[in-house]
Amino acid sequence: MARVVVDVMLKPEILDPQGQAVANALPRLGVNDVASVRIGRRVEIDFAGDADLERAREIADKLLANPVIEDYEIRVVEAA
Amino acid sequence: MARVVVDVMLKPEILDPQGQAVANALPRLGVNDVASVRIGRRVEIDFAGDADLERAREIADKLLANPVIEDYEIRVVEAA
Repeated sequence: MARVVVDVMLKPEILDPQGQAVANALPRLGVNDVASVRIGRRVEIDFAGDADLERAREIADKLLANPVIEDYEIRVVEAA
Repeated sequence: MARVVVDVMLKPEILDPQGQAVANALPRLGVNDVASVRIGRRVEIDFAGDADLERAREIADKLLANPVIEDYEIRVVEAA
Protein backbone atom coordinates (compact mmCIF):
# COMPACT_ATOMS: atom_id res chain seq x y z
CA MET A 1 0.00 0.00 0.00
CA ALA A 2 1.34 3.42 -0.93
CA ARG A 3 -0.22 6.83 -0.71
CA VAL A 4 0.07 9.68 -3.16
CA VAL A 5 -1.20 13.11 -2.10
CA VAL A 6 -2.38 15.66 -4.64
CA ASP A 7 -2.74 19.21 -3.30
CA VAL A 8 -5.02 21.24 -5.56
CA MET A 9 -4.99 25.01 -4.96
CA LEU A 10 -6.51 27.92 -6.84
CA LYS A 11 -3.89 29.79 -8.87
CA PRO A 12 -2.57 32.81 -6.95
CA GLU A 13 -4.31 35.27 -9.29
CA ILE A 14 -7.75 33.63 -8.79
CA LEU A 15 -9.92 35.06 -6.02
CA ASP A 16 -10.65 32.61 -3.19
CA PRO A 17 -13.90 33.72 -1.52
CA GLN A 18 -13.87 30.75 0.88
CA GLY A 19 -10.41 31.63 2.17
CA GLN A 20 -11.38 35.29 2.24
CA ALA A 21 -14.39 34.49 4.42
CA VAL A 22 -12.13 32.75 6.93
CA ALA A 23 -9.62 35.62 6.83
CA ASN A 24 -12.44 38.12 7.44
CA ALA A 25 -13.59 36.17 10.51
CA LEU A 26 -10.16 36.20 12.18
CA PRO A 27 -10.24 39.68 13.79
CA ARG A 28 -13.33 38.55 15.71
CA LEU A 29 -11.17 35.79 17.22
CA GLY A 30 -8.57 38.39 18.15
CA VAL A 31 -6.21 37.24 15.38
CA ASN A 32 -4.63 40.19 13.58
CA ASP A 33 -1.34 38.84 12.24
CA VAL A 34 -2.65 36.67 9.39
CA ALA A 35 -1.91 38.08 5.95
CA SER A 36 -3.94 35.62 3.90
CA VAL A 37 -5.88 32.36 3.97
CA ARG A 38 -6.26 30.15 0.90
CA ILE A 39 -8.38 27.01 0.82
CA GLY A 40 -7.86 24.17 -1.63
CA ARG A 41 -8.33 20.42 -1.80
CA ARG A 42 -6.14 17.64 -0.50
CA VAL A 43 -6.66 14.35 -2.32
CA GLU A 44 -5.25 11.11 -0.91
CA ILE A 45 -4.89 8.33 -3.45
CA ASP A 46 -4.08 4.93 -1.94
CA PHE A 47 -2.56 2.49 -4.39
CA ALA A 48 -3.00 -1.23 -3.75
CA GLY A 49 0.61 -1.82 -4.79
CA ASP A 50 3.42 0.65 -5.39
CA ALA A 51 2.76 4.35 -5.70
CA ASP A 52 2.50 5.29 -9.35
CA LEU A 53 3.23 8.99 -9.71
CA GLU A 54 2.62 9.01 -13.44
CA ARG A 55 -0.81 7.43 -12.96
CA ALA A 56 -1.56 9.90 -10.17
CA ARG A 57 -0.60 12.77 -12.45
CA GLU A 58 -2.97 11.45 -15.11
CA ILE A 59 -5.76 11.20 -12.52
CA ALA A 60 -5.07 14.75 -11.35
CA ASP A 61 -5.08 16.10 -14.91
CA LYS A 62 -8.31 14.36 -15.89
CA LEU A 63 -10.36 14.27 -12.69
CA LEU A 64 -9.00 16.41 -9.88
CA ALA A 65 -7.82 19.79 -11.10
CA ASN A 66 -9.20 22.42 -13.44
CA PRO A 67 -6.08 23.72 -15.21
CA VAL A 68 -7.75 27.03 -16.06
CA ILE A 69 -7.99 28.10 -12.42
CA GLU A 70 -6.04 25.55 -10.38
CA ASP A 71 -2.49 24.32 -9.87
CA TYR A 72 -1.62 21.06 -8.21
CA GLU A 73 1.34 19.46 -6.49
CA ILE A 74 1.80 15.75 -6.23
CA ARG A 75 3.96 13.64 -3.93
CA VAL A 76 4.33 10.20 -2.38
CA VAL A 77 3.79 10.41 1.37
CA GLU A 78 3.91 6.77 2.39
CA ALA A 79 5.75 3.91 0.79
CA ALA A 80 4.65 0.29 0.92
CA MET B 1 6.16 35.74 6.40
CA ALA B 2 5.51 32.19 7.52
CA ARG B 3 3.01 29.66 6.29
CA VAL B 4 1.06 27.15 8.33
CA VAL B 5 -0.84 24.41 6.50
CA VAL B 6 -3.91 22.77 8.00
CA ASP B 7 -5.01 19.53 6.31
CA VAL B 8 -8.63 18.77 7.15
CA MET B 9 -9.82 15.25 6.26
CA LEU B 10 -13.00 13.35 7.01
CA LYS B 11 -12.50 10.81 9.80
CA PRO B 12 -11.78 7.36 8.37
CA GLU B 13 -15.17 5.99 9.46
CA ILE B 14 -17.07 8.77 7.67
CA LEU B 15 -18.18 8.06 4.10
CA ASP B 16 -16.58 10.32 1.49
CA PRO B 17 -18.91 10.42 -1.55
CA GLN B 18 -16.68 12.89 -3.41
CA GLY B 19 -13.65 10.60 -3.12
CA GLN B 20 -15.82 7.61 -3.95
CA ALA B 21 -16.99 9.34 -7.14
CA VAL B 22 -13.39 9.82 -8.24
CA ALA B 23 -12.52 6.21 -7.32
CA ASN B 24 -15.50 4.95 -9.34
CA ALA B 25 -14.33 6.90 -12.39
CA LEU B 26 -10.83 5.39 -12.38
CA PRO B 27 -11.52 2.09 -14.18
CA ARG B 28 -12.76 4.14 -17.16
CA LEU B 29 -9.26 5.67 -17.28
CA GLY B 30 -7.76 2.19 -17.22
CA VAL B 31 -6.63 2.58 -13.60
CA ASN B 32 -7.28 -0.56 -11.57
CA ASP B 33 -4.69 -0.47 -8.80
CA VAL B 34 -6.17 2.30 -6.64
CA ALA B 35 -7.63 1.05 -3.37
CA SER B 36 -9.21 4.29 -2.20
CA VAL B 37 -9.47 8.02 -2.81
CA ARG B 38 -10.27 10.48 0.00
CA ILE B 39 -10.80 14.18 -0.58
CA GLY B 40 -10.35 16.82 2.10
CA ARG B 41 -9.34 20.45 2.40
CA ARG B 42 -5.91 22.04 2.46
CA VAL B 43 -5.85 25.42 4.17
CA GLU B 44 -2.82 27.71 3.84
CA ILE B 45 -2.57 30.36 6.53
CA ASP B 46 0.09 33.01 5.87
CA PHE B 47 1.18 34.88 8.96
CA ALA B 48 2.55 38.40 8.55
CA GLY B 49 5.24 37.65 11.14
CA ASP B 50 6.30 34.35 12.65
CA ALA B 51 4.18 31.24 12.30
CA ASP B 52 2.01 30.82 15.36
CA LEU B 53 1.00 27.17 15.64
CA GLU B 54 -1.14 27.72 18.71
CA ARG B 55 -3.08 30.47 16.93
CA ALA B 56 -3.43 28.25 13.87
CA ARG B 57 -4.77 25.45 16.05
CA GLU B 58 -7.35 27.83 17.51
CA ILE B 59 -8.37 28.91 13.99
CA ALA B 60 -8.69 25.27 12.92
CA ASP B 61 -10.78 24.38 15.96
CA LYS B 62 -13.13 27.32 15.58
CA LEU B 63 -13.37 27.89 11.84
CA LEU B 64 -11.86 25.15 9.70
CA ALA B 65 -12.76 21.71 11.00
CA ASN B 66 -15.94 20.06 12.24
CA PRO B 67 -14.69 17.82 15.06
CA VAL B 68 -17.71 15.52 14.78
CA ILE B 69 -16.73 14.28 11.32
CA GLU B 70 -13.25 15.68 10.58
CA ASP B 71 -9.68 15.38 11.81
CA TYR B 72 -6.98 17.88 11.03
CA GLU B 73 -3.19 18.02 10.93
CA ILE B 74 -1.28 21.22 11.26
CA ARG B 75 2.30 22.10 10.36
CA VAL B 76 4.64 24.94 9.47
CA VAL B 77 5.78 24.63 5.86
CA GLU B 78 7.75 27.81 5.35
CA ALA B 79 9.68 29.83 7.88
CA ALA B 80 10.25 33.57 7.66
